[in-house]
Amino acid sequence: MANIKDVAKRAGVSVTTVSRVINNRGYIGKETRKKVEKAMAEIDYSPNQIARALQRSQSFLIGVVVPDSGHPFFAELIKNIELFAYNNNYKLLICNSLDEAKKEAKYISMLRENRVDGIIMCSQTLDVEEYKKVQLPIVSFDRILSNNIPYVSSDNFNGGTIATEHLIKSGCKRLLHISGPLNLEMLSNRRADAFKLTCMKYDIPHAIIEGEFSKQAFTTYPEDFVKNNLGDELLNYDGVFCSNDILAYALYMYAQKMKINVPQQLKIVGYDYTSFTRILQTPKLTTIQQPADQIGKELCSALIKMIENKDSEVINNTIVDVALIKGDTT
Amino acid sequence: MANIKDVAKRAGVSVTTVSRVINNRGYIGKETRKKVEKAMAEIDYSPNQIARALQRSQSFLIGVVVPDSGHPFFAELIKNIELFAYNNNYKLLICNSLDEAKKEAKYISMLRENRVDGIIMCSQTLDVEEYKKVQLPIVSFDRILSNNIPYVSSDNFNGGTIATEHLIKSGCKRLLHISGPLNLEMLSNRRADAFKLTCMKYDIPHAIIEGEFSKQAFTTYPEDFVKNNLGDELLNYDGVFCSNDILAYALYMYAQKMKINVPQQLKIVGYDYTSFTRILQTPKLTTIQQPADQIGKELCSALIKMIENKDSEVINNTIVDVALIKGDTT
Repeated sequence: MANIKDVAKRAGVSVTTVSRVINNRGYIGKETRKKVEKAMAEIDYSPNQIARALQRSQSFLIGVVVPDSGHPFFAELIKNIELFAYNNNYKLLICNSLDEAKKEAKYISMLRENRVDGIIMCSQTLDVEEYKKVQLPIVSFDRILSNNIPYVSSDNFNGGTIATEHLIKSGCKRLLHISGPLNLEMLSNRRADAFKLTCMKYDIPHAIIEGEFSKQAFTTYPEDFVKNNLGDELLNYDGVFCSNDILAYALYMYAQKMKINVPQQLKIVGYDYTSFTRILQTPKLTTIQQPADQIGKELCSALIKMIENKDSEVINNTIVDVALIKGDTT
Repeated sequence: MANIKDVAKRAGVSVTTVSRVINNRGYIGKETRKKVEKAMAEIDYSPNQIARALQRSQSFLIGVVVPDSGHPFFAELIKNIELFAYNNNYKLLICNSLDEAKKEAKYISMLRENRVDGIIMCSQTLDVEEYKKVQLPIVSFDRILSNNIPYVSSDNFNGGTIATEHLIKSGCKRLLHISGPLNLEMLSNRRADAFKLTCMKYDIPHAIIEGEFSKQAFTTYPEDFVKNNLGDELLNYDGVFCSNDILAYALYMYAQKMKINVPQQLKIVGYDYTSFTRILQTPKLTTIQQPADQIGKELCSALIKMIENKDSEVINNTIVDVALIKGDTT
């Protein structure tokens, strides 16, 4: 590949002049700039950002670790992070942890070795201590890692409250919540907290089943999870709040097989409202909207702020509003 | 951040010895290795892969350009490319062209400047000449760019044939195909070619509507496309082969609104069979499976082969088998 010396030679100017044109620094006459740009085009010169990254100790690379980039919520999140990053001259390195702690740790090492400027963690299977050791700007999605690591999340507690109240106001008398895995201290667990408190407030009998499935569940069969973990017990309930839309659809399909009429006999509320729920499902699911576009933008913007104001000690957490989307399942 | 000199000092060995341990080169005694590894852990040393990339002129970075990483097919493709890349020590830089030629060109420059080892092009809005100029290993999805650039695609012609024959054998007498954009010489256009030839072979009246929508259509409302471009005309047909599943679902939903019974009055076949079609739709769509996992693996493996055997002139194109998945819409 052509280098900066080749450009200088071709344009008949010094290497310093070429460097000034590339970096847009110092005074360069119009004619000179044209000559240099013409030479660059002619010999197909491409500035070496790796060399510049070494010099400046900034790579403009952002690592994004997700459980599964094929999952519709994370796919939409990544797209929105990428669009924001692109507009700010950053590039994304994508990592699929598949919710395996070992793989997540390996990815973090890899990202550090590649001198990313910061990491957006949407997969958190490690102990909090591990994240503190990373020594890079980190922003976390849906989990409080430490006081020095900002997080972005949807308003999970409010989402759980709205969902549960909607079921109660629709006439449900016996409620079930299918949560995410509760062993990790995810902020999404607040949906379960809100479910419990709201049921208690309205004096509604209720139960919670923990989703053993990982966020990667989309690649396996959520219908099997519903079948194996609920079976005939589903008949005990007339309303279910599921912690994600995929599970809510799986439940709907299982109810159909059991000849349980939705929404007459059983009402279902999901969580997420990704594009595939938004645009293309029949029946339309009643769900809580967690806006992936806004969350993606907030995650990326918070990280870039940390990268570019290294000395600032201000940590801004962001809680994004949620909303009930009324569909055909309630 | 700690550097290699700090490690050497801490371990009481030379920099060369530390370098040997890191790179696993030359003879190193067990005791020495242990000492070096202990020192690395104690001062939290992370090798600088950027510096190594400069030295070796290999970055182990792969650029992936897609129209929309939030689209279920591309989301699944990226996931599978990433998993294969990870197992071969490569990392992915993700780029969303949004099917805009200018953006695509900017991404290609950016990827070159960041010295990726190669590019997987799943978005092709530029003239073929532009790709030839890139001077990097490229593998293309679904488009023939030049004799020197291998491509991976599903067997589009066979897919189109199977889909059309299935509709005819199910009793359809007047067929419609809604294609992708036909102005780009995409291999996916062979689905339309196969549709036309199969209809002619069986002497079936037929029409083709060109999908103006881009691959990014998933973010807008495909139902609007169906409504605006078909309207009442849909009543003229009893079978439609759509070039992707999203469009096929949109058509199904539009037919429901028009009180057209699917599959009795209208039969619908899609194309893709991504996870969301596979697992969670009601009704189950009849569609042509284009396996994203296998295509992702083939794209990444072909690119790594090109990167690692620079002098080889053998270009292997890969055509992945398709299959009819019988659902409830035919």
